[in-house]
Amino acid sequence: MNIDGVAYRSIWRDGNVVRIVDQTLLPHTFRVVKLTSADEVADAIRNMRVRGAPLIGAAAAFGMAMAMAADASGANLTRAGEQLAKTRPTAINLRWAIGRMTHALRPLAVQDRPEAAWKEAQAIADEDVAMNHAIGQHGVELIRKAAENRSGPLNVLTHCNAGWLATVDMGTALAPIYLAHDQGIPVHVWVDETRPRNQGLLTAWELAHHGVPHTVIADNAGGHLMQRGQVDIVIVGADRVTARGDICNKIGTYLKALAAKDCGIPFCVAFPGSTIDWDIEDGFVEIPIEERGANELRSVAGRGDDGEQVRLWLVPERSPVANPAFDVTPAALVSMLITERGVGPASRAGLSALYPERSQR
Amino acid sequence: MNIDGVAYRSIWRDGNVVRIVDQTLLPHTFRVVKLTSADEVADAIRNMRVRGAPLIGAAAAFGMAMAMAADASGANLTRAGEQLAKTRPTAINLRWAIGRMTHALRPLAVQDRPEAAWKEAQAIADEDVAMNHAIGQHGVELIRKAAENRSGPLNVLTHCNAGWLATVDMGTALAPIYLAHDQGIPVHVWVDETRPRNQGLLTAWELAHHGVPHTVIADNAGGHLMQRGQVDIVIVGADRVTARGDICNKIGTYLKALAAKDCGIPFCVAFPGSTIDWDIEDGFVEIPIEERGANELRSVAGRGDDGEQVRLWLVPERSPVANPAFDVTPAALVSMLITERGVGPASRAGLSALYPERSQR
Repeated sequence: MNIDGVAYRSIWRDGNVVRIVDQTLLPHTFRVVKLTSADEVADAIRNMRVRGAPLIGAAAAFGMAMAMAADASGANLTRAGEQLAKTRPTAINLRWAIGRMTHALRPLAVQDRPEAAWKEAQAIADEDVAMNHAIGQHGVELIRKAAENRSGPLNVLTHCNAGWLATVDMGTALAPIYLAHDQGIPVHVWVDETRPRNQGLLTAWELAHHGVPHTVIADNAGGHLMQRGQVDIVIVGADRVTARGDICNKIGTYLKALAAKDCGIPFCVAFPGSTIDWDIEDGFVEIPIEERGANELRSVAGRGDDGEQVRLWLVPERSPVANPAFDVTPAALVSMLITERGVGPASRAGLSALYPERSQR
Repeated sequence: MNIDGVAYRSIWRDGNVVRIVDQTLLPHTFRVVKLTSADEVADAIRNMRVRGAPLIGAAAAFGMAMAMAADASGANLTRAGEQLAKTRPTAINLRWAIGRMTHALRPLAVQDRPEAAWKEAQAIADEDVAMNHAIGQHGVELIRKAAENRSGPLNVLTHCNAGWLATVDMGTALAPIYLAHDQGIPVHVWVDETRPRNQGLLTAWELAHHGVPHTVIADNAGGHLMQRGQVDIVIVGADRVTARGDICNKIGTYLKALAAKDCGIPFCVAFPGSTIDWDIEDGFVEIPIEERGANELRSVAGRGDDGEQVRLWLVPERSPVANPAFDVTPAALVSMLITERGVGPASRAGLSALYPERSQR
């Protein structure tokens, strides 16, 4: 995407290293930083300097490429994969990318692995961009249909950030919105703040840079807006989708899905095939839900009156906090899945129709 | 309630002025401040130095008493009532208290109004405390029943602050919790942070001072906890209840009611009779929903690393924000109303049975 006229991806190779946009500094500071090893990539994923299911998959792939450049032994291939896999438990793309890298590299001679690793990681990144464009193309038709015969803009609500920052480029949930805007379909986006880490501010930052009209709201406000007819469609991303269509996504997604159902508003989930965990049916029993650090809720980062980046403390020390990072929305609350293969219902049949090669396993 | 061994109400008369706990400084600083006129009371309500439907009713009554002390003319009675009524539009207790003061004072001779005004305001405050004790007594029986045959503590989820700070003393939603704790029924409270103003931190502060086990969570987390069986009952307060039992309360309440319904968890609303608006049936058409200032969402107050109270900016200026302060939960999502008269279903019949004198109008 363009930032002040310069085209960026959220991660890219630069010689023997990769560069990323440090997402912990956004929306206040745009800074590109260098990651030079699998260790640094693992830290960046853990600390959410890179985040978003598709992006952490691509980042892990690049991390393995740097691990192979340093030591292409089979032992190091195993070590790097394990190190990167344990950074975050919930999103499946991470494990998918590591599995794909391992599968591609293990059969090769040691001396062939470094070059092949960079090539495979780059392919994962490039394919992510292509898949997101396809998601956008399929999703924009839903938006076009919903926008027909309306006078004002179509109001889309989204939760967390499933934009270009959460992927290599373009985004998943935001891809159809960007395309709609570019094609002249008037859209306005309600952006959930998404406490505790406020990834909604990344979404607002993206949308502002692309010129898409939007309004930031507290996570508490979306249900009220739906009740009052101010939301026409909800589109979110996903961190893991089960074979029957249960959706694991950022904490709070379930509440918005309930409100959409109650108010008769389509609730759509956009993701690439790499987000589907074909080994899991029931999202409630089998997906590990990451519990992140208490300080994410206890404190918040922003800009002081002097413009400097500061952190302040909200919750007094004597009060304990809990910080589950994801929740599961049952397939029954999901109106439509939007994938790179097309759209379909959130069900085993719907996913099987889109990915017949997987359903035959 | 006791703060470090000293008994406080949230508002009290001190000679010719009233004193309040400044709630904009909590939970970081406990400071008692003086209000000396109706103007100062109106400012304190508008800026939420006093907040909570029952408390702003009592504060307005004391404001009218100070207005009468300054000028007991009929014109000033009207002026003070109008000034105080327009500070906040949603909670009905404010208008109820002003109406009661006006009704009591208007027939009196001018020279008799000042003393009568202080007396009536004090009666409103004292009755609020008595009603909250009664709410607690009725509500604790629900908790006792729910806690029977359990090994661990009963997990209660609450939204916003409906504790002693939101009332003159004791609280509405928290009254049954305080009584349960005092009676040795083990309870643990999930406390919604309640963005944008984080009134959940007031709840956490109250519970910590009373020694009630609790955990602060992001507003996004409650649905997930309910899905996982970690919430046994939800109890919230109300800013206005319609004659058919629709509940207007802090923004985000509706989302928790939906989740409770979906997960089969009792959703209870605690309030005194003064919160019922008998003139309104349909909470969606007839209750004005306050839209508060953008800076409540754009910025957040807390403690810096040096312990000083600071404010920082979250949302970049180029992104617009919206800040509706309340939402409406339809009666159908409410399991039980808890009032000073007892408990009953959220329906016209349920409210009429509790307040037969009003249903016969």
